[in-house]
Amino acid sequence: MILNKTDLEKLPSRYRALLINSLAGAKQACLIGTKNKTGQSNLAIFNSLIHIGANPPLWGFICRPNTVERHTLNNILEHHYYTINYVATNKYKQAHQTSAKYAQQVSEFEACGFVEAYKENFYAPFVQDAIIQIGMKFMEQVNIEINGTIMLIGSIEQVTINTAVTDDGFVQLSQANVLACCGLDAYLSTTLLGRLSYAKPNEESKPI
Amino acid sequence: MILNKTDLEKLPSRYRALLINSLAGAKQACLIGTKNKTGQSNLAIFNSLIHIGANPPLWGFICRPNTVERHTLNNILEHHYYTINYVATNKYKQAHQTSAKYAQQVSEFEACGFVEAYKENFYAPFVQDAIIQIGMKFMEQVNIEINGTIMLIGSIEQVTINTAVTDDGFVQLSQANVLACCGLDAYLSTTLLGRLSYAKPNEESKPI
Repeated sequence: MILNKTDLEKLPSRYRALLINSLAGAKQACLIGTKNKTGQSNLAIFNSLIHIGANPPLWGFICRPNTVERHTLNNILEHHYYTINYVATNKYKQAHQTSAKYAQQVSEFEACGFVEAYKENFYAPFVQDAIIQIGMKFMEQVNIEINGTIMLIGSIEQVTINTAVTDDGFVQLSQANVLACCGLDAYLSTTLLGRLSYAKPNEESKPI
Repeated sequence: MILNKTDLEKLPSRYRALLINSLAGAKQACLIGTKNKTGQSNLAIFNSLIHIGANPPLWGFICRPNTVERHTLNNILEHHYYTINYVATNKYKQAHQTSAKYAQQVSEFEACGFVEAYKENFYAPFVQDAIIQIGMKFMEQVNIEINGTIMLIGSIEQVTINTAVTDDGFVQLSQANVLACCGLDAYLSTTLLGRLSYAKPNEESKPI
């Protein structure tokens, strides 16, 4: 299939959304846990996790202000603390269900069959038994002028890793069957093909 | 493994970089093709592709100004046109090799065993025989104040998709063995678990 700019503009809106989203390829499936003013918990799936830096550890994600994700956005801007959780591939239907437009007074934890877990001194709810649980603190809002989307950047405050980590620091997510995704509605498992040593000109990288 | 903020700060720098990068999970492996002032081609692997919007189709990626990626960044800011290419899993060693710090006068296409391909009216080089070839035009530079990284946003000008696309617009990347990655040195294949219908409260999504 070959499409130029005019072809893309002429596509039906839903078709284009699915095409452009799925074309962006494999992404980490993240369940973001927050709480609102009244203490009501919220859980929503995001596929736009962005590594911003390792020292200090900073990650971002993209919010579209006019969607269901607003609950997550509002809660983070209000309380500054949120969690990022990775679940196993066998939870993909439950994870997808958190994208439904639940009313604000409904907790997606309960509605979608996840259990809230709290850690000492951390305000936001984690997903109990998640393979990865990360406590985040809001640091910077980046406004993307071209289409009004927002990137929220947070610092990693704490991590719980319930899978193997190699001696050099590589987290074995594939080995633990961590859920990945693609586009708006597709869920993936991943298989590690291999790791390669730091690449240098005119020298073949070695498997690690 | 449980790490709090202080534990993270105390980690050796390389270990922390690998941990935080790999912890960010599955990403699309993108080979970005550009040309410099003198017409010299450049190809570099990136793992930070970000879907910004579908209408108009906009994608971003993250650049760290003080690294080898500078060639890509400079070329895009100079010429505004670049390509994003996805290759098959069996090319992962070649793809990794593009991350080596080659001198500016070396083309990673040639050095890493890829072939430059040009399309009508498009300045930047594509990877010949790539499964996905996307022509991009630079639109917005977003400066991330907290650590000086840069997000470059471009519009999708043309796409060539050498794999199946479903009737509703889903691009079958897993089926075509498109290469994914994780962190700085790990390469992944992906398997589609399933697609699910639009989620609604109190209703089970159906497989698509």
